[in-house]
Amino acid sequence: MTKGNINVSVENIFPLIKKFLYSDHEIFLRELISNATDATLKLKHLTGIGEAKVEYGNPKIEVKINKEAKTLTIIDQGIGMTSEEVEKYINQVAFSGAEEFLEKYKDSAKDSGIIGHFGLGFYSAFMVAEKVEIITKSYKEEPAVRWICDGSPEFTLEETTDKTDRGTEIILHIAEDSLEFLEEGKIRELLLKYNKFMPIPIKFGTKTHTLPLPEDAPEGTTAETEEVDNIINNPTPAWTIAPADLQKEDYTKFYHELYPMQFEEPLFNIHLNVDYPFNLTGILFFPKLANNLNIEKDKIQLYQNQVFVTDEVKGIVPDFLMLLRGVIDSPDIPLNVSRSYLQADGAVKKISSYITKKVADKMASLINENREDYEQKWNDIKIVIEYGMVSEEKFFEKSDKFVLYPTTEGKYLLWNELEEKIKPAQTDKDGNLVILYATNADEQHSYIQSAKDKGYEVLLLDSPIVPHVIQKLETSKEKISFARVDADHINNLIKKDEPAISKLNDTEKETLKKEIENAVNDQKFSVQLEDLDSSEAPFIITQPEFMRRMKDMQATGGGGMFGMGGFPEMYNLVVNSNSELASELLKTEDTEDKTSKIKYALDLAKLSQNLLKGKDLTDFIQRSYQQLSK
Amino acid sequence: MTKGNINVSVENIFPLIKKFLYSDHEIFLRELISNATDATLKLKHLTGIGEAKVEYGNPKIEVKINKEAKTLTIIDQGIGMTSEEVEKYINQVAFSGAEEFLEKYKDSAKDSGIIGHFGLGFYSAFMVAEKVEIITKSYKEEPAVRWICDGSPEFTLEETTDKTDRGTEIILHIAEDSLEFLEEGKIRELLLKYNKFMPIPIKFGTKTHTLPLPEDAPEGTTAETEEVDNIINNPTPAWTIAPADLQKEDYTKFYHELYPMQFEEPLFNIHLNVDYPFNLTGILFFPKLANNLNIEKDKIQLYQNQVFVTDEVKGIVPDFLMLLRGVIDSPDIPLNVSRSYLQADGAVKKISSYITKKVADKMASLINENREDYEQKWNDIKIVIEYGMVSEEKFFEKSDKFVLYPTTEGKYLLWNELEEKIKPAQTDKDGNLVILYATNADEQHSYIQSAKDKGYEVLLLDSPIVPHVIQKLETSKEKISFARVDADHINNLIKKDEPAISKLNDTEKETLKKEIENAVNDQKFSVQLEDLDSSEAPFIITQPEFMRRMKDMQATGGGGMFGMGGFPEMYNLVVNSNSELASELLKTEDTEDKTSKIKYALDLAKLSQNLLKGKDLTDFIQRSYQQLSK
Repeated sequence: MTKGNINVSVENIFPLIKKFLYSDHEIFLRELISNATDATLKLKHLTGIGEAKVEYGNPKIEVKINKEAKTLTIIDQGIGMTSEEVEKYINQVAFSGAEEFLEKYKDSAKDSGIIGHFGLGFYSAFMVAEKVEIITKSYKEEPAVRWICDGSPEFTLEETTDKTDRGTEIILHIAEDSLEFLEEGKIRELLLKYNKFMPIPIKFGTKTHTLPLPEDAPEGTTAETEEVDNIINNPTPAWTIAPADLQKEDYTKFYHELYPMQFEEPLFNIHLNVDYPFNLTGILFFPKLANNLNIEKDKIQLYQNQVFVTDEVKGIVPDFLMLLRGVIDSPDIPLNVSRSYLQADGAVKKISSYITKKVADKMASLINENREDYEQKWNDIKIVIEYGMVSEEKFFEKSDKFVLYPTTEGKYLLWNELEEKIKPAQTDKDGNLVILYATNADEQHSYIQSAKDKGYEVLLLDSPIVPHVIQKLETSKEKISFARVDADHINNLIKKDEPAISKLNDTEKETLKKEIENAVNDQKFSVQLEDLDSSEAPFIITQPEFMRRMKDMQATGGGGMFGMGGFPEMYNLVVNSNSELASELLKTEDTEDKTSKIKYALDLAKLSQNLLKGKDLTDFIQRSYQQLSK
Repeated sequence: MTKGNINVSVENIFPLIKKFLYSDHEIFLRELISNATDATLKLKHLTGIGEAKVEYGNPKIEVKINKEAKTLTIIDQGIGMTSEEVEKYINQVAFSGAEEFLEKYKDSAKDSGIIGHFGLGFYSAFMVAEKVEIITKSYKEEPAVRWICDGSPEFTLEETTDKTDRGTEIILHIAEDSLEFLEEGKIRELLLKYNKFMPIPIKFGTKTHTLPLPEDAPEGTTAETEEVDNIINNPTPAWTIAPADLQKEDYTKFYHELYPMQFEEPLFNIHLNVDYPFNLTGILFFPKLANNLNIEKDKIQLYQNQVFVTDEVKGIVPDFLMLLRGVIDSPDIPLNVSRSYLQADGAVKKISSYITKKVADKMASLINENREDYEQKWNDIKIVIEYGMVSEEKFFEKSDKFVLYPTTEGKYLLWNELEEKIKPAQTDKDGNLVILYATNADEQHSYIQSAKDKGYEVLLLDSPIVPHVIQKLETSKEKISFARVDADHINNLIKKDEPAISKLNDTEKETLKKEIENAVNDQKFSVQLEDLDSSEAPFIITQPEFMRRMKDMQATGGGGMFGMGGFPEMYNLVVNSNSELASELLKTEDTEDKTSKIKYALDLAKLSQNLLKGKDLTDFIQRSYQQLSK
């Protein structure tokens, strides 16, 4: 039997690292700036604990382009490397100096914000560079060294007097197929994408700064200017600051910093801050959702120690919160793995349920703090909340505390308020509480009016997800049901034990029903005589709740049964037997006249349900004009 | 100066390969089956060219689960490995045997379908297994060997007498955190996802096969059954067969094979087949798009040499074709790289424009082959085609050959047919051809009727993307313009040099206009008197084309100007000064009566434009019922 070690040959693996280490080549810059940040934070830590006897100062990281020399240079003022350390950390691929550092200083350096993990990041430079130089001088009293590698596994290493100040310079000689990374616009874009909130100031070029005029300057004096460093990042973004130290304006300012193209202000913010069982900070914003929900571009961003990871947060953030904006930062989120890996990760799953809980708690406290403000914003946030109610059980359980039910009168009621208000009038003879709602105040106007005339409250529930919300409520709460105002005549929607008074006897009703059926002559309408108030409309078209709801649910996806799309349109034609028209029709002898009256009344009932269309509508209008000009 | 070689230490890189080689752990099965396929195809090639003196036979690949032993085994009957080859191909990470084979046999093996590339695939086994065994016997006369590795870089290798037949067995001892890969359902799912069309039969378990009864069997004889291999894949899917050898039924059968949950038949198929400048085969289907466009689940699938790569084809397939279904297979598509890498790849970009061209050509030939059939399918395919017209210039350029313009009369015209038909009547006094259209035959019924009465043709263009298509046509073609039938009175939409005859003199007109303006008293409506036929409606509400179109475009995203959302609703109230009502109104002395008549006429005009809503509509209906019962 042979024993042996599996051999990873540099010649074989190096080309793979160069080409496929990261799927996006542009990641190299993020990796090198993370390394520069780590080098600086390590120095900060060592000076902090007194192990490095040098001045920490106000170090920054500089990024420079030299188009003629075709180089891109990243300079830090951090810990630097001795010749020995270069051998150890650079010449051994996948040996992570950051891991070693954190292991060595594990007690004191836990919260140092050091990013590095796998020791592969530096090699990503070879994805875009044909040659890489490192010039580095350690904070220890040792000479600077220069390391050069042309992408083959061979390198050279020598002492140099070129560098006298502490820190590391990485010089990338950009390859011909990657010249885009010599464009200022491209580098700026990458810095703003990945490094906008990193903890060490990053200098990219200079800018002109106008000095304030001295107070005694004569009028017309030109202000003097000076060239100052152009710092591209904000090293202390709002989410890294304690909520107690932030004002509302600070959150708004941060929102605009995060999404420079968003002009509207966010409605609410939720500051996340947790240490256990995982580390997570962040700020979520409820945006004012425009009609077309332009959610594609400005999404929630995921950070790891202030380094941008991704804005593809599906599976990390619960689906219903994908409509929010903001930032989530956790050192427990792996930097370089795919979305499918993230979704399967246990820590990430916990993050998702923590965020759900936190959002529910925040909503409950917001409504208590300022009910009026919350009510004003309700129509902008309800889609998110309603989606949460039907998709996250934990969220639904808490939802009675912060979900508002708007009425057609413009009031906004919590569930218990609604119940209390409508219980006396809207409990039917079997003890069920019937909640009436409309989905469109304009289109269902006449039906809403009938309900109001009875002293009932009508909710206005107009988001597309409402059928699902209603179903969720009906299956979770006892003895309640929802009915849209046009699902039947109002007397049938909330049945009471009140005897109906009828002007017509049964024979008359039977006759009238037959006559109307004959005149209408349409399978879609099933004629139903009801003893209503004489002031009610003579003809009313209704559509049964169950069937309509199934159709609505299918339209928004999710619910509904297979094949419901093929459901025929079915309506009830409620005829008010106590109306003047009913009596009038019975009296009318002339069949033609009778039929014409029934048809006209049916047209009017159709108009109420938005069912009179096309040629029928054109004819109706034409007849009406003729009537008018007579 | 020191020179040296960068060192990749196995201890450091092995854990990374195990954990992060592929973002989806499930990929391991695809990789191992690809290796087994390669081993088999290599043997096929070597027997084919006479270099291997063994019988190729009907080799298959077998996948076996042993839940008790916690093993998953993949067995092939391919080329096998000698002890020396195991040392070379297995013990050296990232040494690709497939690359070496293709290099060695480069002339003859070009089209052999061998998949392997980087020599890393095998190691993906360690993503799910704590120990991996290989038992392999080469087609050469050498003893079988057994290789075992527990995931540390250490391995053992020994001769074995356990295996006497040719080929390789990979035995994965599944790790505790990956026990899901011992579930039959999971493995079946993976095989069906990645390996459903791979070229070597894959056996996964057995199934019971009922034997046919002998012809002379007495009635009531029970048919005998036998256990047969359960082959999970189709090794020769339709796209690998020459189009000349396929019937329409074969395409339909393949469609259902690809999308077992699709019950509808596809409308058209497009067989792709190209050798130069890249290799690409595939079949695209136009599905019958349901109302809710359930495009999420059944998408175009991308294959590389019959191995499933992804169904995230954005950037590879032009956007407008993402609504299609089917398969694209190209050896030039890299297996293991990310979407963003794919999108930047030059070969992939060429694929996209080739597919666009091919689809355009196919459409043109389909309409020529069977115009009637094409017309019937138009409403199901138009969204794809229209999206292509506005998003791909090359597609637009060819589109006159296959885009149909449906009329409200149910005819379907090509552009040149349309032009020829309407030129005589619909050219205005400035020589512009005015194309009239409606977006909804029901809602715009009265306007369509007016246009038809003039002998004009009205198109029915009802997809949401139509405003963009129209804009594209207007900017590409000379002296044409589109107008929706309700954009103005028909006389103004197509202006002719015909003198209008008026019943009213200018003073009367001026008086009437003022009276109507006072009665209407609404900034939304701008009153405009026109000398129309006396038979035309007295009041007509129109909405200017430009403003309405901008709004429509904004609603569908893309077009429109910044801030157009805030546009006020503006209408013209066209008053027919030759109508009876106009004369009647002038004669009416009583102001209250006059106002009431004007308001009623305005209500009727609003009904025509679907503008009478809410309380106004309820009041209108109530008044009408009262009128009826009088």
